[in-house]
Amino acid sequence: MGKKDKDGGAKSYNLKVPKGTKDWDGEAMVIREKIFSTITQVFKRHGAVTIDTPVFELKEILSGKYGEDSKLIYDLADQGGELCSLRYDLTVPFARWLAMNSSIQNIKRYHIAKVYRRDQPAMTKGRMREFYQCDFDIAGQYDAMIPDAEILRITSEIFDELGWKGKYTIKINHRKILDGIFTVCGVPKDKIRTISSAVDKLDKSPWTEVRREMTEDKGLDPEVADKIGEYVVRKGGRDLLESLQADATLSANETAKQGLADMELLFNYLDIFSVYDRVSFDMSLARGLDYYTGVIYEVVTEASAPPAAQQLASASSSTTTTTPAAPSKPERKSKAPKQANGDDDDRSNDPSIGVGSIAAGGRYDDLVGMFSGRTVPCVGISFGVERIFSITRARLEAEGQAKPRLTDTDVYIMAMGGNGYLTERMEIAKRLWSVGVKAEFFWKVKPRFDKQFAAAEKGGVPWSILLGEEELKEGKCRIKELGLEEGHPEKNGVLITLADLESEVLSRISGAKQADGVVDITKAMGNADMKAAPGS
Amino acid sequence: MGKKDKDGGAKSYNLKVPKGTKDWDGEAMVIREKIFSTITQVFKRHGAVTIDTPVFELKEILSGKYGEDSKLIYDLADQGGELCSLRYDLTVPFARWLAMNSSIQNIKRYHIAKVYRRDQPAMTKGRMREFYQCDFDIAGQYDAMIPDAEILRITSEIFDELGWKGKYTIKINHRKILDGIFTVCGVPKDKIRTISSAVDKLDKSPWTEVRREMTEDKGLDPEVADKIGEYVVRKGGRDLLESLQADATLSANETAKQGLADMELLFNYLDIFSVYDRVSFDMSLARGLDYYTGVIYEVVTEASAPPAAQQLASASSSTTTTTPAAPSKPERKSKAPKQANGDDDDRSNDPSIGVGSIAAGGRYDDLVGMFSGRTVPCVGISFGVERIFSITRARLEAEGQAKPRLTDTDVYIMAMGGNGYLTERMEIAKRLWSVGVKAEFFWKVKPRFDKQFAAAEKGGVPWSILLGEEELKEGKCRIKELGLEEGHPEKNGVLITLADLESEVLSRISGAKQADGVVDITKAMGNADMKAAPGS
Repeated sequence: MGKKDKDGGAKSYNLKVPKGTKDWDGEAMVIREKIFSTITQVFKRHGAVTIDTPVFELKEILSGKYGEDSKLIYDLADQGGELCSLRYDLTVPFARWLAMNSSIQNIKRYHIAKVYRRDQPAMTKGRMREFYQCDFDIAGQYDAMIPDAEILRITSEIFDELGWKGKYTIKINHRKILDGIFTVCGVPKDKIRTISSAVDKLDKSPWTEVRREMTEDKGLDPEVADKIGEYVVRKGGRDLLESLQADATLSANETAKQGLADMELLFNYLDIFSVYDRVSFDMSLARGLDYYTGVIYEVVTEASAPPAAQQLASASSSTTTTTPAAPSKPERKSKAPKQANGDDDDRSNDPSIGVGSIAAGGRYDDLVGMFSGRTVPCVGISFGVERIFSITRARLEAEGQAKPRLTDTDVYIMAMGGNGYLTERMEIAKRLWSVGVKAEFFWKVKPRFDKQFAAAEKGGVPWSILLGEEELKEGKCRIKELGLEEGHPEKNGVLITLADLESEVLSRISGAKQADGVVDITKAMGNADMKAAPGS
Repeated sequence: MGKKDKDGGAKSYNLKVPKGTKDWDGEAMVIREKIFSTITQVFKRHGAVTIDTPVFELKEILSGKYGEDSKLIYDLADQGGELCSLRYDLTVPFARWLAMNSSIQNIKRYHIAKVYRRDQPAMTKGRMREFYQCDFDIAGQYDAMIPDAEILRITSEIFDELGWKGKYTIKINHRKILDGIFTVCGVPKDKIRTISSAVDKLDKSPWTEVRREMTEDKGLDPEVADKIGEYVVRKGGRDLLESLQADATLSANETAKQGLADMELLFNYLDIFSVYDRVSFDMSLARGLDYYTGVIYEVVTEASAPPAAQQLASASSSTTTTTPAAPSKPERKSKAPKQANGDDDDRSNDPSIGVGSIAAGGRYDDLVGMFSGRTVPCVGISFGVERIFSITRARLEAEGQAKPRLTDTDVYIMAMGGNGYLTERMEIAKRLWSVGVKAEFFWKVKPRFDKQFAAAEKGGVPWSILLGEEELKEGKCRIKELGLEEGHPEKNGVLITLADLESEVLSRISGAKQADGVVDITKAMGNADMKAAPGS
């Protein structure tokens, strides 16, 4: 038609994406895809299947699941029919799915998808209103701590394979131990969850502030708060576990006793799985969400800590996590003053990622029962891809890594002079596509050579097919590896017979892939990691 | 905690997904993933990159793009801040992205993502309110019809590789030829688009009904309608093109002349690309959306036609598409009466999939200019995965194909008696995971053998590692291929030394993969296809 619509044309647009969302393209997209494929590969190695649920759920499914963060849920407009909301996480839709499919007694499932929160965005920190989660969950009735240990093994495989070996810590704790501590310290039963939420802020607020919240905002007896303070600053490994087991008051509490027994079993399993040296039993870890019932965990790196605490975090991570002496005072006193806009605090109930954590989860045995009455014990973890991406990209840039290629194209087919050889270039492209070779050519009848060359170079294409008058007359063309140095014997390419095109190209590109490989981010990160990792 | 929330527990839920949406799981998910990977592989073979845009856009970005179908757009509730809507397709967000990124002069991009339409769902036909689209678009200033031809080549590679060779037809037409015809037949300029929309319904309504709409609803002179009727029933290939070029009245129209020249060029290119025999130049194809400016196309299969027309469609598809005699009357007169609920008609403006088409697209040179004033010519196609999935699954079932495996697990590690050998099973699993083997074991301390075996069988796991007292004492275990017949010499497994575990397992699973392959849907479809395809 060539004409514009009545309301199109010169209309002035507010050309942007909605607040807290972004377009993904170019190099960022390539890095993100690589992170997804690394994570997916590990999930599949552990026998997981994937499911996909709708991006919106009936509003009532989500209500009553997220505590005070329910205000962050996006609703769809009421345009007639059902009231719906965008999903807030992948855990509640998974529990809804389990409740609906009562024939399913057990499953290992992963789900990689976007979730939505009307939060205050902080794009540089990777906090968005639309962001990806990668969830892995195990549902079913099994023996204590075995699936829980496998979740932590999966976590360690993923971060090791992303090239973060030696640079992350899995903080773990147990809801039953925490609840036992609160009880023996004298917290009234109806205040346990709210006091637990206050403790959860210790990763970004100093003890004095958390104590103030407990006593002033939540009306806790200051003496009780001080008793809690002595417990929650402690971290370590088996040493800490033994000291808690030796604590007569705590061990007399049945809930705490169960939690401590679980933890002992978990440590044994983590030993077998070679994961024990990556974990830190951290009594200050509480997790905001109400639905956890057992072990809870959060993965942090140096980049996870708030700016002012990074030096401390860095120092503590270099001593790793097995047997630090329990400090007598909270560690993060040096934290910068709380920000006026509350940016650092409004995700304290985040079910997947605390401010700074790059993965988080735990056991939630009662959530499915909220929907159906049927009890299906579950344990899972959610990886925060946006934060993993931000840290990965910053690291690649800092280390001066080669930029990843944007496409996988193997061969660029070029005409040198003549009539542009469009027919020949199309014919050759078709033959290469037919045998699975990734090939491109320039979409002009008579393209300039420099334009074709620039297109191939921009895409980092390793090989070119060159068509010239002389060669074509003899039923031949040249195949040339791009980027060879001056003086290389094959700098001007190698003459091949057009009839043998497919075999000539296939043998070269498969040979090149074996010899020096395609640029591989994970590999590049792994190499850099080996150089940079302390103590390796 | 173990206790339920105040508003949780016994609350009665409406346990369902929103209308027009569904959960994907099990076998369906495996087939869908396989379709995605087949499509993605072809896109990458042609040098495409991928981008990802937010699931919602500012409301004003979408308005004025979809004609009367704008009423189907989902809006987000006004919770303060910007007004947003869920994307209706992937084309408008792509155009918005191009307009925002003015440094990008050209790109081949694909985008596989969900789109949203408040339509009347027809789940069995694959018409959902939330559904996936797979889009491939080429943006940039190139010579006429070269990118257009490559899009059709990509289309043919995808359907061939999905196993549909010989079972689909790419209907093509050109907006400039259509507009030229309407003009020479005497359609007033301001009625061209609305008459074009009426013509577009010829794939599901008989000519008498379309003629009635033109004359009674849209006030077209009946003589003009009859002239149009003589053109739009025609279909064919080069024969039709030549007859139109020989039509003096039509050739005198400058717009039609340009369209015919484009079509001639396109046929030449499709010949080189070996795609010409898959296309049908179909004058009744008009496409609902306003924004097309050049060549337009739609892919149909036998399953695409409405039930009453299937016999006719089947008959015409077996003669393929190159030189059918132009019928003197419209072909689909036998169509069942229009349904009272209008189910068959309310997607007539669908930008990607007509009722029945499995992929569709065309050239849209002016859409980016609607946002930014900058002109970026574009051509693209959108694959309707839900419909492709429905047809694929129905075909697999009809052909009695083996169900695809749900997981990729290579090895299941089992205890035979003893104390359950949990430590040993965990240790072996860890060693196998460390070398990339996909391995599982049963999460019980002392599992029953039949439970372990059932789990392995359910997952179609090809190998097992068996741990027994005798063997372990000697530092050995058994490796056994599952599903061997009685009497096979290795029916009871082969004794291996635990120290050699990794190499013993790796050599077996890689050998097995080369020998008889994993169950591969595409391969299975391809084999079935070769048996069933007429004329091959």
